[in-house]
Amino acid sequence: MQTQLEGWRARADQALTAALPDTTLAPQNLHKAMHHAVLLGGKRMRPLLVYAAAYAIASDEFDTESCDAAAAAVELVHAYSLVHDDLPCMDDDALRRGQPTVHVAFDEATAVLTGDALQTLAFETLAKAAWPATTTVETLRILATASGANGMCGGQALDMDATGQRIGLDALKRLHALKTGALIHAAVELGAVVAGATSEQREALSRYSTALGLAFQIQDDILDVEGDASTLGKTAGKDAAQDKSTFVSVLGLQASKDQLQLLLAEMEKALAPFGTNALPLRALADLAVRRRH
Amino acid sequence: MQTQLEGWRARADQALTAALPDTTLAPQNLHKAMHHAVLLGGKRMRPLLVYAAAYAIASDEFDTESCDAAAAAVELVHAYSLVHDDLPCMDDDALRRGQPTVHVAFDEATAVLTGDALQTLAFETLAKAAWPATTTVETLRILATASGANGMCGGQALDMDATGQRIGLDALKRLHALKTGALIHAAVELGAVVAGATSEQREALSRYSTALGLAFQIQDDILDVEGDASTLGKTAGKDAAQDKSTFVSVLGLQASKDQLQLLLAEMEKALAPFGTNALPLRALADLAVRRRH
Repeated sequence: MQTQLEGWRARADQALTAALPDTTLAPQNLHKAMHHAVLLGGKRMRPLLVYAAAYAIASDEFDTESCDAAAAAVELVHAYSLVHDDLPCMDDDALRRGQPTVHVAFDEATAVLTGDALQTLAFETLAKAAWPATTTVETLRILATASGANGMCGGQALDMDATGQRIGLDALKRLHALKTGALIHAAVELGAVVAGATSEQREALSRYSTALGLAFQIQDDILDVEGDASTLGKTAGKDAAQDKSTFVSVLGLQASKDQLQLLLAEMEKALAPFGTNALPLRALADLAVRRRH
Repeated sequence: MQTQLEGWRARADQALTAALPDTTLAPQNLHKAMHHAVLLGGKRMRPLLVYAAAYAIASDEFDTESCDAAAAAVELVHAYSLVHDDLPCMDDDALRRGQPTVHVAFDEATAVLTGDALQTLAFETLAKAAWPATTTVETLRILATASGANGMCGGQALDMDATGQRIGLDALKRLHALKTGALIHAAVELGAVVAGATSEQREALSRYSTALGLAFQIQDDILDVEGDASTLGKTAGKDAAQDKSTFVSVLGLQASKDQLQLLLAEMEKALAPFGTNALPLRALADLAVRRRH
């Protein structure tokens, strides 16, 4: 299993490298900053979800190569969002994936442009994929809807609006369903669509990915309390310092950990119909919940 | 002619309004900022180019409605770029289209997110258009290529790299071919593709739009010297204050004006095969060169 995930991770990195602009060509600063933002670390959770979802549908029959564009595109959207979220006017983070953030390594203006260009590159990558046109349009619809004002961007805005306020569990869930959940959901959907999933299969995978997105965020909040910068690769304790509501602050630490176990069971149930084809998706659920960074 | 352009402008505004998220729904601040960025003024040059290019191909036979999504999408990319270009870390502009810029009317973080969400909305708008899938994929390819690191974003990065330096005429042309030209070129391409242009027709329109993009920027540079904030709707004299190379600073004012006339003649020549169907494109060339803001 670990070998399979490593293989997919390497494929995703190759697809990302191929998509990024040449750093020897002008504007070099922008191109270098784009490489910095994308290629220096990262777990590649979202690309792995694309491959693993396609594998759940089609098992060994599935065409790994057909997933590359979707895997790269969803990671490019994720990378762009991190670059902008780290900006001084947003979360003001100096460290990401154990490296200086883009506005620290380069400058703020370059960081704004880098995020912008990475977002565009995500959609350009879909446009160039060797899929039937109807598949491309469907992937475009999925990725754009998940990323925009009613998805990831909207979640980040809700997060800003909520900073310094106490919000309840439902509002917190809704916030993270958009901020983190939408893109995780989209990654699984992309893999399913590329592999030709039926609507029943998409429905089951949707239950899995909705639970996964929530679990991922709860673990993030736990790590922000329990982790340290050296394993996290980013500054710990930021949420409390910024007076943000988190699952830990709303539910408490133990209840948050209990919630994670419930979500794991929910994911297991959603994946049951896929049998052993869902082993990679199960492994990713496990990783998301047990990760230390 | 003026009535026709006004009609198309109204259509574009309707399409933009329909695409933007509801300001009564959360996150309200983000949604309001998106409306502010898009709906408060603007000449709608790029949407008008979409309609006018389609009209040049298909005359009165053309389906105006089929252009709406492309018209809205290209304007959304333009609007997002303005919001980000106006940021304090970029051009630091407080006034745009006679209104406070988004980071002034709201705040910087909202301005970053607003630009991000507007870019996504551009691609989402293409995804939802009622075109054959192959047309959608082609429009996606055109818009993404024109907007990214090898298009508009790359041009903005070249502009930043060149600030405070003297650059020559060729470098200045290359910079603006990306920064302003690529999206104007894309607008015309989008109209042509939606209307089913032949490759010869696309080639001719490409010569027109390349000349138009350059003319548009030269006129911008002239207005920055000759205009004032009340007619411009933005701060005049910024280029000199920021020590940017412009066509006026490189060529001189009179030679810049002469260059505009040469470009008008070039556009006229490119449009000749379209006869009276190109009247709207001619009117837009005229507007771009004679505009006072």
